[in-house]
Amino acid sequence: MDHKDWVRGQLEGLSKSLGFRYVPREEIENRLTRLRKGMEKEEMEAFLVVQKMDCYYLSGTTQDSLLFVPLEGKPLLMVRREVERARVESPLEEVLGFKSTRELPSLIHEHWGRLPQALGLELDVLPVRDYFRYQDLFPDTRFMDASPIIRDIRKIKSPFEIELMRVAGDIGKKVYQEAKEILKEGMTEIEFGGLLEAAAKRYGHEGLLRVRSLNYEAYTWHVLSGPSGGIVSQSDSPMGGLGLSPAFPVGASFRVMRAREPILVDFGTCYHGYQADETRMFSIGEMDKKFIDAYSACREIHDAVLEETRPGADCEAIFQKTLQLADKLGYSPSTPRQARDDAGSGYGGSYLGPPGLQTRFIAHGIGLELNEFPFLAQGQPYPLEEGMTFAVEPKIVFPGEGAVGLENTVLVTQDSYEILTPLEQDIFRV
Amino acid sequence: MDHKDWVRGQLEGLSKSLGFRYVPREEIENRLTRLRKGMEKEEMEAFLVVQKMDCYYLSGTTQDSLLFVPLEGKPLLMVRREVERARVESPLEEVLGFKSTRELPSLIHEHWGRLPQALGLELDVLPVRDYFRYQDLFPDTRFMDASPIIRDIRKIKSPFEIELMRVAGDIGKKVYQEAKEILKEGMTEIEFGGLLEAAAKRYGHEGLLRVRSLNYEAYTWHVLSGPSGGIVSQSDSPMGGLGLSPAFPVGASFRVMRAREPILVDFGTCYHGYQADETRMFSIGEMDKKFIDAYSACREIHDAVLEETRPGADCEAIFQKTLQLADKLGYSPSTPRQARDDAGSGYGGSYLGPPGLQTRFIAHGIGLELNEFPFLAQGQPYPLEEGMTFAVEPKIVFPGEGAVGLENTVLVTQDSYEILTPLEQDIFRV
Repeated sequence: MDHKDWVRGQLEGLSKSLGFRYVPREEIENRLTRLRKGMEKEEMEAFLVVQKMDCYYLSGTTQDSLLFVPLEGKPLLMVRREVERARVESPLEEVLGFKSTRELPSLIHEHWGRLPQALGLELDVLPVRDYFRYQDLFPDTRFMDASPIIRDIRKIKSPFEIELMRVAGDIGKKVYQEAKEILKEGMTEIEFGGLLEAAAKRYGHEGLLRVRSLNYEAYTWHVLSGPSGGIVSQSDSPMGGLGLSPAFPVGASFRVMRAREPILVDFGTCYHGYQADETRMFSIGEMDKKFIDAYSACREIHDAVLEETRPGADCEAIFQKTLQLADKLGYSPSTPRQARDDAGSGYGGSYLGPPGLQTRFIAHGIGLELNEFPFLAQGQPYPLEEGMTFAVEPKIVFPGEGAVGLENTVLVTQDSYEILTPLEQDIFRV
Repeated sequence: MDHKDWVRGQLEGLSKSLGFRYVPREEIENRLTRLRKGMEKEEMEAFLVVQKMDCYYLSGTTQDSLLFVPLEGKPLLMVRREVERARVESPLEEVLGFKSTRELPSLIHEHWGRLPQALGLELDVLPVRDYFRYQDLFPDTRFMDASPIIRDIRKIKSPFEIELMRVAGDIGKKVYQEAKEILKEGMTEIEFGGLLEAAAKRYGHEGLLRVRSLNYEAYTWHVLSGPSGGIVSQSDSPMGGLGLSPAFPVGASFRVMRAREPILVDFGTCYHGYQADETRMFSIGEMDKKFIDAYSACREIHDAVLEETRPGADCEAIFQKTLQLADKLGYSPSTPRQARDDAGSGYGGSYLGPPGLQTRFIAHGIGLELNEFPFLAQGQPYPLEEGMTFAVEPKIVFPGEGAVGLENTVLVTQDSYEILTPLEQDIFRV
């Protein structure tokens, strides 16, 4: 048997029996059609896709590849490693192996008959050194930023994508239900987080979360107990936690979890690249009333966002409305209703982060990455659209004492919403 | 109490009790001195450090920051989030908060008295869009690539760094020793991988591995059983495995591990940002003799590399020598000594990957990232130096049947080497 045929047979046999879902041809075709509408508007003759998740979205494979998408003509998938596997995974017809970017101009010329005069690249993530190399390789080409176009089409999810997000949500549900059995007094945050992640992997969680960014590292072991919940760190989040070291100063730490304190678990899952994000509260015994009250407030804010969720609703307006509601409920940073003199910091519950460090969003778009459009946030005055998905996460911080919050991943439907992380919202008390 | 003092008190109290090791001032000063030698040689007036691990290396913090290092004068650490935490973590004296990159020119001017004419940036990772923004903000400045300088100084590890790598190695040792108790027949690769990771986290593994790259995603659940070990995927590795989906087509899969087949576990650990990487073989019952023989060959190649390891030894020459040794031992892809007709692919054991898909390295530098210098590889004709650290990983693949391999993380000492992952090398048979 020919080596290539053998590789193909192995891959098809093994991966099919293990539940791989390949992206269907018509799904890719629909995405390319929508991409090309955006390219046409910008007078972009072709788009050279370099970023892994964009490449997956448009080709169905995450093999080490570059994807050339002309406005007119067939796309060309050029694969460094491993081309036979890319041929199994991608429904695209033109798939070639290559070794060096030096080959690109001739491969494209051979495929398309000429080189593009206006070529899109993802300039929001492409490293400068690679850009200079493309300038050398295509001296007569004008480069344009294609990232707004690809990010724009990726914000609307297809039924195929939504189904994968539902599975991710289902994995999360199983993990949270198991968590009640895992959590024990005297356990460290990181031990608990690690066991949650092991459970998630057993159910098919791919073990990583993705963010479109040079430096922003997503992680799923965000377990914050008691005062850890009042610590802000590098990430644009109401609370970062302590983490394990200055090199990873976020998420679960070696802190031992105690009875009666709030334990916030913000856990994301990833299935076939698609992510679901949710937060629930845990406690060992009953937590202090002020945390229970603040959690009720989070639920009220969460429900208020969902009440507004429908195509046409303005993203910034929804965020502003939650500020007003938090204020009315007594959790505005400027009105420390629950200030205490006896212990702790003297601060009351503060919506979206400690005073002075609040985030300015109540929800982030989610899909292949955790920072997709839409953002229900300050400075984001655009409407929700059918097929958008976002994670809504009202959180309240008591500096020095703890944090509470609720988060669900939500789909905007034709006239309302669907929760993709359907799971009981009561506090998990063990 | 003032809010800032309170945050500082909280952080210092909590993080000290949880074993945080901050980078000492003299460590930072030594690194800056070495960096400036490189900058002076390139006539670089200043370096604006944007990448998280470079920033950690030169400042001690991974808060969301930019670090301005002039050739002459004090460095300025500018922190987006969270500046109070950065002040706790970094021994640098000048630490300021900022909100927008628009503020950079005035912050730098105020600190340094003028703006640099020749400014270094890490052009190997900096996104093009950010580069254009810096060009706008500093219209009279010439930009240079500072990444060769920072990568060059980072390749030599200090005693402080080596000690952190030893701890990472120690975490790995505990994990492998526990692994014997965890592995059971009928378990999937991913369940095993997830439980190993949970154990590692409990001991202080930070849960992520880092690579300096746009698209290359490192992961630690690289558990490949039987035919999974013969599958190559996106990464530059002798074997990629199946993974869980086309979106993450590497590492452990849902495949159920069986008795008598080779189970390759390539597990990396990260402690305070510093990584150790190792591979050991497992089997449930005794694996087939040909795999045991091939594993002995891996040990022989591993030992041959260590025998050559000392300052002055040429990296490419060591790699080439392993090719010759593999050939002599009968594992050259062109000499399929063990070809079988009765079953499988008809291929024998093939050094560094299936025929036609072999990698061209036997070791990669390791530290804060998995692709540091040195590379013991084709096209890398430079000498080893004292203080370099690398992971040496001879592997042999039997396409369709399995893979075996051994890996240790090694320090180049004054006249020899030290293994930073000291752990028994025999096959772990359960």
